[in-house]
Amino acid sequence: MSVLESPTDTSFAAGLGELLPEALLKLLQGLEPDRPASVAGEDGGTGTVAGDEASEYGQLAPAPQGPRLGIGMDSCVIPLRHGGLSLIQTTDFFYPLVEDPYMMGRIACANVLSDLYAMGVTECDNMLMLLSVSQKMSDKERDKVMPLMMQGFRDAAEEGGTSVTGGQTVINPWIIIGGVATVVCQPNDFIMPDSAVPGDVLVLTKPLGTQVAVNAHQWLDMPEKWNKIKLVVSKEEVKQAYQEAMLNMATLNRTAAALMHTFNAHAATDITGFGILGHARNLALQQRSDVAFVIHNLPILAKMTAVSKACGNLFGLLQGTSSETSGGLLICLPREQAARFCAEMKSSRLGQGGGVGQDGGVGEGQQAWIIGIVEKGSRCARIIDKPRIIEVPPRGSVSWGQEGNNNNNKANSTGAPSPTERQSPALN
Amino acid sequence: MSVLESPTDTSFAAGLGELLPEALLKLLQGLEPDRPASVAGEDGGTGTVAGDEASEYGQLAPAPQGPRLGIGMDSCVIPLRHGGLSLIQTTDFFYPLVEDPYMMGRIACANVLSDLYAMGVTECDNMLMLLSVSQKMSDKERDKVMPLMMQGFRDAAEEGGTSVTGGQTVINPWIIIGGVATVVCQPNDFIMPDSAVPGDVLVLTKPLGTQVAVNAHQWLDMPEKWNKIKLVVSKEEVKQAYQEAMLNMATLNRTAAALMHTFNAHAATDITGFGILGHARNLALQQRSDVAFVIHNLPILAKMTAVSKACGNLFGLLQGTSSETSGGLLICLPREQAARFCAEMKSSRLGQGGGVGQDGGVGEGQQAWIIGIVEKGSRCARIIDKPRIIEVPPRGSVSWGQEGNNNNNKANSTGAPSPTERQSPALN
Repeated sequence: MSVLESPTDTSFAAGLGELLPEALLKLLQGLEPDRPASVAGEDGGTGTVAGDEASEYGQLAPAPQGPRLGIGMDSCVIPLRHGGLSLIQTTDFFYPLVEDPYMMGRIACANVLSDLYAMGVTECDNMLMLLSVSQKMSDKERDKVMPLMMQGFRDAAEEGGTSVTGGQTVINPWIIIGGVATVVCQPNDFIMPDSAVPGDVLVLTKPLGTQVAVNAHQWLDMPEKWNKIKLVVSKEEVKQAYQEAMLNMATLNRTAAALMHTFNAHAATDITGFGILGHARNLALQQRSDVAFVIHNLPILAKMTAVSKACGNLFGLLQGTSSETSGGLLICLPREQAARFCAEMKSSRLGQGGGVGQDGGVGEGQQAWIIGIVEKGSRCARIIDKPRIIEVPPRGSVSWGQEGNNNNNKANSTGAPSPTERQSPALN
Repeated sequence: MSVLESPTDTSFAAGLGELLPEALLKLLQGLEPDRPASVAGEDGGTGTVAGDEASEYGQLAPAPQGPRLGIGMDSCVIPLRHGGLSLIQTTDFFYPLVEDPYMMGRIACANVLSDLYAMGVTECDNMLMLLSVSQKMSDKERDKVMPLMMQGFRDAAEEGGTSVTGGQTVINPWIIIGGVATVVCQPNDFIMPDSAVPGDVLVLTKPLGTQVAVNAHQWLDMPEKWNKIKLVVSKEEVKQAYQEAMLNMATLNRTAAALMHTFNAHAATDITGFGILGHARNLALQQRSDVAFVIHNLPILAKMTAVSKACGNLFGLLQGTSSETSGGLLICLPREQAARFCAEMKSSRLGQGGGVGQDGGVGEGQQAWIIGIVEKGSRCARIIDKPRIIEVPPRGSVSWGQEGNNNNNKANSTGAPSPTERQSPALN
C-alpha cells in the first residue's frame, strides 16, 4: 500500500511535486468506522473483532479471531472466518520512472510484493496486474513497450513464487503499472509490525537515493540542471548510480522477509514514497512499547549525497525525506541478531533479483546495514545531527565489496575490526 | 475483472472507442504458462494443481487442491494451501460516467463486487479502493467531488457486508475509481461457471441499455446529436432513463448471488463491457457440456431501443454488443427453478440498493427476466432474429409493475396467464 504513499509516489514518478489534499487523507483515514482497527500481537490473541461479519446472507459463521491491521501500514491484515487464517493484501500502482520497460515491470511487481515482505510474508498466493496503456503512444510504441513491461512484471512475480492470474487494463493519458498481492496466512507466517522494544537495532536492506539517481539521470539531457551538479559527479557516475538504483528497485525483499523469522524481527516496514524518516516515523507510531527510532547511518548510492548537496538538497536525502521506490525493508531486530541477519543477507542467493544483475549481481547476495537503534521514547523517529553517510558503490565496481560492504560478514576473515563495529560506534 | 472488459469499459466511460491492441490481449492470455488454468467442477475434486506452490522459502506445504480459474472469467479462483479453501478475487477500475460523484462511487463498488456475485459468492472479506484524483480539478472541485465519490464507494461496500481497508491513490489526468474485492471461500460458497446443460434457461437480473441512456443524456446538451433522436424520445424520458440506469448500475447483484445457491444455478457471469452477447459467448466457452446459449428476449430500459434505432444502432444494443457498466447477472438455471428465482428476486428486500432508490425503490425487490434457453451446441451464443424487446419502465413510473414487471411472481394472484408464459412462448 498505500494511500499514504501516494503523494510522494506520484511526485517522484511523475515529477508533479503535488500533494494530495488534506481532506482526502482525512477521509481515507476515516474509512473504517465500524471496524476498530486495533493492532494486536502476532500471537493473535488480542485482536479486536468486527461485529458485523455474519450478515443476513451467509450462515452465522463464528466471528473471526486474530490481529487486524487497517489503513496506514504496508498491508492490511483481515482475520478470516476459517481456521484462524488471515488475509493479507496490498495494492500499489504508479507511473514509469525508468526508461527500460522490462525493468519497470520488474520494479512495479517488486514494489507491490515488498508490502507483503514487510510483514515477514514470503509467499504470495495471487497477483493481479493493474495496467493502463497510454492513448498517446503510437501503435508501434505500444506493441513494443507494453509487452516488455508486462513480461518484467510477470518474471518478478514468478521470482516471488506466484503468478499473475488477472487484473484490469484501461487506456489513459499516462502509462500506469501496478498490482495487487494477496496471501492467506497462518498466524506464524506473518509478523505484525508493532513489537519493537528499547535495545533493538534498525536494519535497512537497500541503499537510499533512488529518487536522486533517477532525477540526476534525467538531467543528463537538461543542460541547466546538469550544470548544477556536473562539478561533483561525472556522467559515467550518474549512469552507474541510475543503473544501480534500477537493479535495487527490481530486487525483491523476499530474502529479508524470510530472515525476519530466523532472527526474530520485532517490526518492519518498507521504504517508499515518504523516505526513510517518514516510514520510520510511521512504523514508530504502530509500536506497543514506548520507543523511539534513532537513525545514525545513511547508506546512500555512491555520489548521490554529493549530487543532492549540489542541488541545494532539493530532495531532502540527508534529512531522510527523499522518496524511494521499491526501497529496502527497515527492520527492528534484537541487537544480538542484527549482525547475523546482515551476514545471512550477504551470503544468501535467494530472492536477490539475480536474473537482472549484470555485473557481479548473481550469487553475491544483498547488502544490509545496521543504521540505528531503538530506545525508550514516545513513538517517534529521528536522524542524528550528523549521520554517517555510507557511500554504496555500484555492484561490480572496483569498490564493490569494500566500503559499501561494511557488514558483519561470516566470510570476513581479514582480522580487521568487523564492519559493524567500524560503522556504528554510536550503537555500542 | 477483467482484462477482457477494458476495451469497452474504456470506450463506454471515456468515449474513446479505442480497442486494446490484439498483441496485449494475447500476452494477457498467455500469462499463466506454469499453471494450467483448467476449470474444474465445483465439487473441487478435479482441479489442476500447480506444481510450483512449495517454494524454497516456506515449509513444504501440501499442494493445494480444488478448482482453479484464471484469466477470462469474472473472478480468479486460486486453491489455497489451507484446508480446502479457495481465494477468489477480482479488480476493476474505470472512469466516471455519471455526473453524480456519490452515485459514481456506488456504481464503481457495485461493479467490482458484481464479479464475486457472478461466482455465487455473497460475502466479501476485504475491499481495497483504487483512486486517482485528476490534476485538472481545482482544489474546490477536488475537495467536493472526491470525498463524495469515496463515500459512495464505501457505502456500497458496507451494503455488501464488507469495508474498505486500504488501497492506493494517485494523481492522474483523468479521475479513476475502482477496487479490489477478495474473499476466502469454502467449496460450497461459490459456483464455478461451467455446468450449464441443455434444458437450462437464461435469466438476466438487470435491464440492458445503460450505455445508450448515459450517452443520450450527454446529448441533451449537444444539439446536433440531440436532433437525431428527438423525434423518438422526450427530454424527460431521457432523464428518466438515465436516472434509472444510474440506480440499476448502483444496485448490488448480491440477492441474485444468494438465490443462485437456492435455485441450483449452473453457471453465471455479469454483463459489462462486452454487452449481453459478448458475455454470453464468453460464458458459453467455459462450459463443460456441449451447449449453446440462445437469447430470445431483451429487457431494455424504456425508450432506449427507439433511441438506439434513431441513431443508426450506433451501440449495437439490439445485437447485444452495447456495453453495460455494473450490469445484471446472466445466470443458467434449471428450467423448473427459473420462475421461482425471478419471483424471489422480486419479493426480496435484500441487496437491492434500497438506500438509493428514490421512487418506489425501497422494498420492491429487483426484476429478473427469463431471456433465453440453453440447448445442445458448440459452446457459442446467439440472439434470435427478431428478439422480443421488453421495455422496462423507470421504477416509480405509472407503468412500473406492469409491462416491465413480467415475471412469474408469487404475489401474482390475478388469474391471468403468468408473465413468464406471456413473455417467452419460444421457451415452452
